[in-house]
Amino acid sequence: MAVMNSNDPRSGIALVAFDADDTLWRSQDYFDDAQASFERIIAQYVDLGDVGQRLYAYEKHNIAFFGYGAKGMALSMVEAAVDITEARISGSDIKRIVTLAKDLLRHPVELLPDVREAVAAVAAQHPLVLITKGDLFHQETKVRDSGLSDLFRRIEVVSEKDPATYARLFEEFGITAAQFLMVGNSLRSDIAPVLELGGWGVHVPYHTTWAHETEAELGQGQGRIRTIDSLAALPQTLQELDIQSRLQPAP
Amino acid sequence: MAVMNSNDPRSGIALVAFDADDTLWRSQDYFDDAQASFERIIAQYVDLGDVGQRLYAYEKHNIAFFGYGAKGMALSMVEAAVDITEARISGSDIKRIVTLAKDLLRHPVELLPDVREAVAAVAAQHPLVLITKGDLFHQETKVRDSGLSDLFRRIEVVSEKDPATYARLFEEFGITAAQFLMVGNSLRSDIAPVLELGGWGVHVPYHTTWAHETEAELGQGQGRIRTIDSLAALPQTLQELDIQSRLQPAP
Repeated sequence: MAVMNSNDPRSGIALVAFDADDTLWRSQDYFDDAQASFERIIAQYVDLGDVGQRLYAYEKHNIAFFGYGAKGMALSMVEAAVDITEARISGSDIKRIVTLAKDLLRHPVELLPDVREAVAAVAAQHPLVLITKGDLFHQETKVRDSGLSDLFRRIEVVSEKDPATYARLFEEFGITAAQFLMVGNSLRSDIAPVLELGGWGVHVPYHTTWAHETEAELGQGQGRIRTIDSLAALPQTLQELDIQSRLQPAP
Repeated sequence: MAVMNSNDPRSGIALVAFDADDTLWRSQDYFDDAQASFERIIAQYVDLGDVGQRLYAYEKHNIAFFGYGAKGMALSMVEAAVDITEARISGSDIKRIVTLAKDLLRHPVELLPDVREAVAAVAAQHPLVLITKGDLFHQETKVRDSGLSDLFRRIEVVSEKDPATYARLFEEFGITAAQFLMVGNSLRSDIAPVLELGGWGVHVPYHTTWAHETEAELGQGQGRIRTIDSLAALPQTLQELDIQSRLQPAP
């Protein structure tokens, strides 16, 4: 999808991309709930204060095998449950853990406040894409259930949101980084790699964030990021950044 | 990625797509091995002749939750193991099942015979894409490890290979179905939906096929399919179909 023909870096923002989970709709809340249920299951066997941290150690180690998403989390939970309980966990509690994952994979899609209006307003001005990581199947289901899919030119489910992934997408989209703006809740995945490449970011913090996503370091490019409380502020913020992008020499 | 400018249906095959698992490299063998290990674990608890069929019933039911791939299979195995053993399965055996999935997700990528030469020969004549379903993360890892990724213009990991998915890809690629040829081992996923839309198929059967992929019905379009034993025959077969496509009116 070549979204524009001009590669003039002063042509302004040519493509706006949205993250999905915790930017457009609730997600981490469901993962937090699943983790709380997991901790209650484990508490029947051992009295530990750090089950959450122990689970995170399994999840982080297992990213190399499972990638991101609810299925990998569930497998990490099963593995952690066996180890933490020294294999005393019952079969029925193991099955409850698998059921936690199924519930998570089929939770209703609940849009965050102001999302529909903000996305529609931006779509009237710019071509939009959605860039999300996690389980392909789960993300596609949520996009379909969200009722927003018609507003996006393309849905990209990627396995990692790093500079290499964004650079590949810019090439596919036929744009430069300076023409790209990403809207998302994760500094690590949505903002830092885009700024690093010379793009623009709008950070919309969410009230709860998975530990992994808070591990970010913003280097250069801090003049190309804005932070907003709610997507209601996005159309105005985007207009300001678009003007700035036309005035500012590309990095 | 618009791969060509002409939409003349008589312009021949404009884009060749390959399936990945069991078309380019071994995959089902590893799943079969994992299933055999699962059956040995279960046999410690119950003496049943149909553990494989029972597991498949869980897998098929769970596609709606998990989609395709090794992680979903592992979660189905865990669930089935608890049920089949009436929750008597031990924690350490549950962990062995999770380890089966990890092993499956990190098996070496072993190209099938003649693949490298055949893909390179076709790439010299046509733009290529790879279209595979399953876990995004797992598939991307295998593509990277295969050493073939430079031969493909794009890697598409999709959640389902049905007519709607192929139709969306044709639009993204800027081609008609009549200009598209798919090479793969699964009649259900690689051949039937492409023929249904008016495209071309080269079927390369693999010695073992997951039960789910054998459930196919080929309707119309049987004049637009060839079956070959090995990818060594692909360049010649493709040339013949390309000529046929230039002579034959589009459906």
